[in-house]
Amino acid sequence: MNKNSDNKTAILLMHCTDRQGIVQNVTEFIDNNRGNIVELDEHVDREENVFFMRIVWELKNFLIPEDKIGDFFEVQIAAKYNMRFNLYFSDQKPRMAIFVSKMSHCLFDVLSRVQSGEWDVEVPLIISNHADLEPVAHGFGIPFKVFPVTKENKAEQEAKEIALLKNHRADFIVLARYMQVLSPAFIKEFPDKIINIHHSFLPAFPGAKPYHSAYKRGVKIIGATSHYVTEDLDEGPIIAQDVAHITHKDSVDDLVRKGRDLEKIVLSAAVYEHIQRRTMVYNNRTVVFR
Amino acid sequence: MNKNSDNKTAILLMHCTDRQGIVQNVTEFIDNNRGNIVELDEHVDREENVFFMRIVWELKNFLIPEDKIGDFFEVQIAAKYNMRFNLYFSDQKPRMAIFVSKMSHCLFDVLSRVQSGEWDVEVPLIISNHADLEPVAHGFGIPFKVFPVTKENKAEQEAKEIALLKNHRADFIVLARYMQVLSPAFIKEFPDKIINIHHSFLPAFPGAKPYHSAYKRGVKIIGATSHYVTEDLDEGPIIAQDVAHITHKDSVDDLVRKGRDLEKIVLSAAVYEHIQRRTMVYNNRTVVFR
Amino acid sequence: MNKNSDNKTAILLMHCTDRQGIVQNVTEFIDNNRGNIVELDEHVDREENVFFMRIVWELKNFLIPEDKIGDFFEVQIAAKYNMRFNLYFSDQKPRMAIFVSKMSHCLFDVLSRVQSGEWDVEVPLIISNHADLEPVAHGFGIPFKVFPVTKENKAEQEAKEIALLKNHRADFIVLARYMQVLSPAFIKEFPDKIINIHHSFLPAFPGAKPYHSAYKRGVKIIGATSHYVTEDLDEGPIIAQDVAHITHKDSVDDLVRKGRDLEKIVLSAAVYEHIQRRTMVYNNRTVVFR
Amino acid sequence: MNKNSDNKTAILLMHCTDRQGIVQNVTEFIDNNRGNIVELDEHVDREENVFFMRIVWELKNFLIPEDKIGDFFEVQIAAKYNMRFNLYFSDQKPRMAIFVSKMSHCLFDVLSRVQSGEWDVEVPLIISNHADLEPVAHGFGIPFKVFPVTKENKAEQEAKEIALLKNHRADFIVLARYMQVLSPAFIKEFPDKIINIHHSFLPAFPGAKPYHSAYKRGVKIIGATSHYVTEDLDEGPIIAQDVAHITHKDSVDDLVRKGRDLEKIVLSAAVYEHIQRRTMVYNNRTVVFR
Repeated sequence: MNKNSDNKTAILLMHCTDRQGIVQNVTEFIDNNRGNIVELDEHVDREENVFFMRIVWELKNFLIPEDKIGDFFEVQIAAKYNMRFNLYFSDQKPRMAIFVSKMSHCLFDVLSRVQSGEWDVEVPLIISNHADLEPVAHGFGIPFKVFPVTKENKAEQEAKEIALLKNHRADFIVLARYMQVLSPAFIKEFPDKIINIHHSFLPAFPGAKPYHSAYKRGVKIIGATSHYVTEDLDEGPIIAQDVAHITHKDSVDDLVRKGRDLEKIVLSAAVYEHIQRRTMVYNNRTVVFR
Repeated sequence: MNKNSDNKTAILLMHCTDRQGIVQNVTEFIDNNRGNIVELDEHVDREENVFFMRIVWELKNFLIPEDKIGDFFEVQIAAKYNMRFNLYFSDQKPRMAIFVSKMSHCLFDVLSRVQSGEWDVEVPLIISNHADLEPVAHGFGIPFKVFPVTKENKAEQEAKEIALLKNHRADFIVLARYMQVLSPAFIKEFPDKIINIHHSFLPAFPGAKPYHSAYKRGVKIIGATSHYVTEDLDEGPIIAQDVAHITHKDSVDDLVRKGRDLEKIVLSAAVYEHIQRRTMVYNNRTVVFR
Repeated sequence: MNKNSDNKTAILLMHCTDRQGIVQNVTEFIDNNRGNIVELDEHVDREENVFFMRIVWELKNFLIPEDKIGDFFEVQIAAKYNMRFNLYFSDQKPRMAIFVSKMSHCLFDVLSRVQSGEWDVEVPLIISNHADLEPVAHGFGIPFKVFPVTKENKAEQEAKEIALLKNHRADFIVLARYMQVLSPAFIKEFPDKIINIHHSFLPAFPGAKPYHSAYKRGVKIIGATSHYVTEDLDEGPIIAQDVAHITHKDSVDDLVRKGRDLEKIVLSAAVYEHIQRRTMVYNNRTVVFR
Repeated sequence: MNKNSDNKTAILLMHCTDRQGIVQNVTEFIDNNRGNIVELDEHVDREENVFFMRIVWELKNFLIPEDKIGDFFEVQIAAKYNMRFNLYFSDQKPRMAIFVSKMSHCLFDVLSRVQSGEWDVEVPLIISNHADLEPVAHGFGIPFKVFPVTKENKAEQEAKEIALLKNHRADFIVLARYMQVLSPAFIKEFPDKIINIHHSFLPAFPGAKPYHSAYKRGVKIIGATSHYVTEDLDEGPIIAQDVAHITHKDSVDDLVRKGRDLEKIVLSAAVYEHIQRRTMVYNNRTVVFR
């Protein structure tokens, strides 16, 4: 497992019903083809009896050509275990679209990570239902498209957004405090590919105005939750959560202020794991290999 | 505000509608009577327009006799502001009754703090609906009374418990993972005097089996909540909360194990604040002066 | 203590040797002059016998003219207690200069809070020893001055920086990962007015390359510390600290990455408290009223 | 990897210089002998180029007899990779000796976990340099031996302690706030088998009175560190650390009080990982598989 950081790697994520010998079979597949494994994480969900694995290997001396690896793995391993898998290569930069509304803190946080090179992604475009943050997008040199959404035009606007996203070959979408609910039709186009930040420690305080609810309930902790978006609002698989302690001295405005820091850090933590291809979704829960 | 740690102090907690001049009036009352203030904390709830204060002063040279302080404060200050207040003296040891069922971790934690002198309280008795933890109580030399509770005998058993608690002059009750719901009639006898520990970060996962629910929902954080008991189950004013990060690797059993540590630390933190007379309840929320 | 958020307030921070009656005297001074107190925090350091207080009141009906309050307070109160105090008014925007080198994460975090209106400050200029981050400054419309520093020209360059800072009426300075040690002469110009972020939980790992040291020592926690700068490197009074858990899986690069989030959040937390005039320094420690 | 919780398992911990094919070889060894792998964790330290693995498998149908597994693994795998390994079986209860002085909080915490069945260990004896905690030991029904230690008798007393520990077949030792420094001779008898709790976030504040030092330095965070004991005081490999936020309001006594909770939770967390055979030591650092 010697690592040469210049080296191109393959990243393979898989899950299947658990059976004896899977790790041995998969590692044999890679070793026999002269792949040098540099990372291996596995997990077995005992309640569901499901096996998960993420494995990374160097391609330098690998005997199977890159564009055939998926086929070979399918035939030699995946078919045998009725396995679902995703294969990525380290030199493919994920293409991340961003949706925003009027609040800028998550957008700034995400864009500053891209611009500084902390994240190795492309940002082909930013979409918003308001024009307010256009100057921010332009400051970072990223195209900004406004699609005002009303009850009446929602389906139509979303169709345009989908077309634009496909046109820009967006791999996934980050909702950086986007204050519109996406329709099931939209979500179906990007399964496990839309990352949202909700401003509470879900499942507490779903829906609108969680900080007001938290204040009213008198909690001593507030939180933020980043999750993949599903049709059930605020109920998608959770990727990351964090919290902050508060006291009776904190007003609703203080909660909003302290919450902003949580929101941006938690959203960016989730996006980072996604970019690193460390997340898998199963049964509305996530496996996040670290 | 010089402090002499040998010195007996008075502790005064108060709240009233906020108006100009309260701090000045209360501190004047104490200063003019030669009380040396050693702690002062105030808070104004701007949403409700309520003023809260906790003030501690040395009694050594105080001109008003101890047993008259309440009357004098009522007449000279409290009546003017329509204030509610509680007065304590530092040499009154709170008398704490404990309710348990079968799990021992919170009981051990509480009793070890009493025995080591960490907490300055008396524990006149432990009450349980099961006999299992009797040896633990005896190991600490504390009377242990068993009151098995069924739907049929609940009212009757609770009446006996209340009589026993009054007989032992219990000031407050700690539910150290007591797995019975107390009736409204019982709760009314001890308003803001019963401290419970719930094994989730309320308001998420109220009711039974929160760790199973947390596992199923796939949260990345579990928590514990200590609160005063009210008639609305798991909805009383929160005193303390804390959380722990978990991952996909944690089974329900792991959550239960990690949760035990949270439960005992959070419950004891809440009890400590109560013993120190640092908590006030208003509008189903707490002010906890630290 | 009714609050009208439109209202201009005075903020008074003070400390002196502790004596009986100070709170009563100060609140009487404000009440008698028809000031409505909206915040009051006091603290007594028992080891040093020092009294600290922060008090905020509305100026609407205050009898003493704004420009005379300091004089009146000095004569009527401060002189009596040999008190040191600072007086601020809520409509004075603090003027914050920023020093940076090549890393952008703290700079982005600070500037995004200013631009979004989260902080109510002016940023008259950014100073750096490198030109790298000039585009970031310009993206936010803020003047950026480069002063390359060598052993030979340090005194000269710092003299120019001081002149420029005074010319721009900078009230305080934020070192947003500025990788130069400031000279004692420079620091003397801005006592308790320079806020630094150090990338470890001081006093562990002072000096250069703390993440490498942390990795080598095998700690399970990394941290960041924001402090006022004094002549003793990394030994100034601490304003804020936070930490993150790490594991054996984290490489030095992972520590650097995770540390960036700590650094920006902790630095901004400290700056926020400073801007709010909530910090006092005494004996190389801080009192931070919240 | 199906798990039957009734099933006896083997736990194998290993490390060696990293090379291609190790995971494949080890898993093949187990699979070919009909072992069902239930847990697998591996880690590669890239700086040192060292491979670490923990692997757990069911013994039910395993072809190699239990008492020969070590030999077979040595010959077929370990020798080839120049690997160091430890083999455990799930039905071997670790035998844990405890050393204490006068403070009871860690002792209570540890013993309550044993008595409640939270930990699956035997506690053959408790050793102390003072008689104070004898009643606690007796309350839990555990032998308690007192060895007063002076400069003069230290070597002699330690020799007796070692004899007693060997006589009781102690596998490892927990220093539950034992306030004596063990000699190098003693430590050599139990390499990576003595777990200490230090009351600071090492490497900050090593040595005596860390809470006083923390107060003096004005830190905003205190911590506790559990580590294996080596000849270099407070410099052994760290197993677990945690911290708590403090403020200027906290006196040294408050730090001591808050620290007690950290100490007991962190010590017990480290002991738990050790009991579960999840810890490996390399180069004065730990790998803790979770």
